[in-house]
Amino acid sequence: MSAWVLPDYIADVLPCEARHIEELRRGLLDTARSYGYELVTPPLLEHLESLLTGTGEALDLQTYKLVDQISGRMMGLRADTTQQVARIDAHLLNRPGVTRLCYCGSVLHTWPDRPHATREPLQFGAEIYGHAGLQADLEAVELALNCLQGAGIDRVSVDLADVRIVRSLLTGVPADAARLRQVHAALAAKDASELRALTCDFPAASREGLQVLLQLYGDHSVLDAAAKAFSHLPGVQEPLAQLRAVMAHIGTDRVTFDLADLRGYAYYSGVRFSIYAQGASDALVRGGRYDEVGAVFGRNRPAAGFSLDIKQLVQALPEQSQRLAIRAPWSNEPELSNLVADLRRQGEIVVCVLAGQASEADAFRCDRELACIDGRWIVQAIE
Amino acid sequence: MSAWVLPDYIADVLPCEARHIEELRRGLLDTARSYGYELVTPPLLEHLESLLTGTGEALDLQTYKLVDQISGRMMGLRADTTQQVARIDAHLLNRPGVTRLCYCGSVLHTWPDRPHATREPLQFGAEIYGHAGLQADLEAVELALNCLQGAGIDRVSVDLADVRIVRSLLTGVPADAARLRQVHAALAAKDASELRALTCDFPAASREGLQVLLQLYGDHSVLDAAAKAFSHLPGVQEPLAQLRAVMAHIGTDRVTFDLADLRGYAYYSGVRFSIYAQGASDALVRGGRYDEVGAVFGRNRPAAGFSLDIKQLVQALPEQSQRLAIRAPWSNEPELSNLVADLRRQGEIVVCVLAGQASEADAFRCDRELACIDGRWIVQAIE
Repeated sequence: MSAWVLPDYIADVLPCEARHIEELRRGLLDTARSYGYELVTPPLLEHLESLLTGTGEALDLQTYKLVDQISGRMMGLRADTTQQVARIDAHLLNRPGVTRLCYCGSVLHTWPDRPHATREPLQFGAEIYGHAGLQADLEAVELALNCLQGAGIDRVSVDLADVRIVRSLLTGVPADAARLRQVHAALAAKDASELRALTCDFPAASREGLQVLLQLYGDHSVLDAAAKAFSHLPGVQEPLAQLRAVMAHIGTDRVTFDLADLRGYAYYSGVRFSIYAQGASDALVRGGRYDEVGAVFGRNRPAAGFSLDIKQLVQALPEQSQRLAIRAPWSNEPELSNLVADLRRQGEIVVCVLAGQASEADAFRCDRELACIDGRWIVQAIE
Repeated sequence: MSAWVLPDYIADVLPCEARHIEELRRGLLDTARSYGYELVTPPLLEHLESLLTGTGEALDLQTYKLVDQISGRMMGLRADTTQQVARIDAHLLNRPGVTRLCYCGSVLHTWPDRPHATREPLQFGAEIYGHAGLQADLEAVELALNCLQGAGIDRVSVDLADVRIVRSLLTGVPADAARLRQVHAALAAKDASELRALTCDFPAASREGLQVLLQLYGDHSVLDAAAKAFSHLPGVQEPLAQLRAVMAHIGTDRVTFDLADLRGYAYYSGVRFSIYAQGASDALVRGGRYDEVGAVFGRNRPAAGFSLDIKQLVQALPEQSQRLAIRAPWSNEPELSNLVADLRRQGEIVVCVLAGQASEADAFRCDRELACIDGRWIVQAIE
């Protein structure tokens, strides 16, 4: 095997795309900042129990493990950043009030989490801690939409759900954690017969409610159907009212519902949303409320937020064109050096031509050059 | 052990510093871009042999190893990015002429590489491939200095050396690779007696030359002393002439020399430089020429460049002050929402106050607020 072959689902990012990703990164961080989200950068490596406690089996299997040769303890490479940011909120900042945090960095997965996905997503996210009310949910979804719009994704659809509805239907059913996982999987897969088999000994209300739930996807009429079907069930009316409020906040026309959708259920605890670029089958953004995520760090703060993979986002956008640049001869002559420095300060790209230099690169195209005309250096167009 | 304790030499970056690092990152990448350096982003994980072949034992011991559960092969977490960028130049881009590349990303070390260093530096670097002449060296050191200046480090000293001088002195000596490593270490430590013991069976010219070399540090008079001491030695005059040219390019007053300095010798092959903030004992930047670094990828291109750790750089700069922000009540009222959106587009930070909100955060301080006066929303100073 040649030394230059990369592992499967691992890739270099080459100039044009790398620069596009860099610009998306800056735009996302600046949009979050304009809402008052403070940037934090948790480490790539942590003790395994910090990364995994309370996050469920799926994340465990996605996490690379290492031995720390200083301490002999197990460390993990982060496969998700949310848990780390909850730790920072709970312990390092430890503020009494509302805290808004954002982050951007690589995460690593032992396996790609969908076909053709990279094992090294570049995760950007924003999270708001310390506010249990709906305003935090609304701000999270609004910020996510503004982030996508700033990146150039204008036409989106937002899919809403609320894990509390499924939880209400499953309250008191005679099933252990393993069976509940299977039930969740059957709901996510919309597998009615599997679900029927798994729930045969559940109370009739739960059993039938779960079957009804499988049909509750589509436009806003789903909310009326759910209100009617679950009118007897405590703990369902509030989630439905909140879903209605989220829909009102972001506009009815681009909202859909899928009340059985449980992706990421391991830490969500209320409203959750997925945002799709129109026509795409994979969600660009996933977010919602996850009030229990900081519990392991001793501080169970209300939390809402979202995350996205910038490497996936860049694929949904048209390629950037090459930046235009100026070609200059290499020289120590002060007049030329000063002119080159000035042009660079003004934001121009000035490429000094060395022996062997091909004038074009993937990211830049020289359309002008510095030439000495009648003893003065000027910028002129290249024919 | 509590779940929130981090491993030794691993730390979160909290808001004020994280934003400062983000701004340094942008400035460094944009400075490199203004010289025509294209951004590339190699992966954090690669097959171990790609990361390590030809790089020496020190990097091997600094590299975390993992098993790829897809292929069963060993992977490494990169401890340095230079080798990866050489691979990209050699194989992915594979251009005939000069190629300029830059990068910025985390590297991970099994042990901190100096006291109090992080095990997760944020490495920024720039490299120029395909030009064997001195112009590439000059551009690399000039760009490094401009990067530091742009970051706010104005007063620096540049320490120069050239590994070819040591190589000339060691040509044909009766020593295996292990002993040569010891000789290099003794030179780096300026340990004259250890060096004498290690070289007792070397030809007199080598033995005495190495002792002389230990004294060759200081200002530009070192070059004259070296020219005189090694006048008989082939292959020393050219490096000395190049060191003189580098000094002339960047200004005599801030240059020092240490001709026995061999840090990073595993891949350097010519002029090398270390840049220090004035008064600091650890170099902020290390760079130079490393023509053999791409050989393992089948394309031995001339190469020169440098790298630095942004987490170390930020420590050398004064703390940034808090950004001023505007406080706004949370509301769905269209007039207020539009005003908030406008202010954010203009670059302001507008924090919507939620129940439980403390008005100040680490990174922002609200000095203005949105208030409704006579039915109109205006921005007013907070008393």
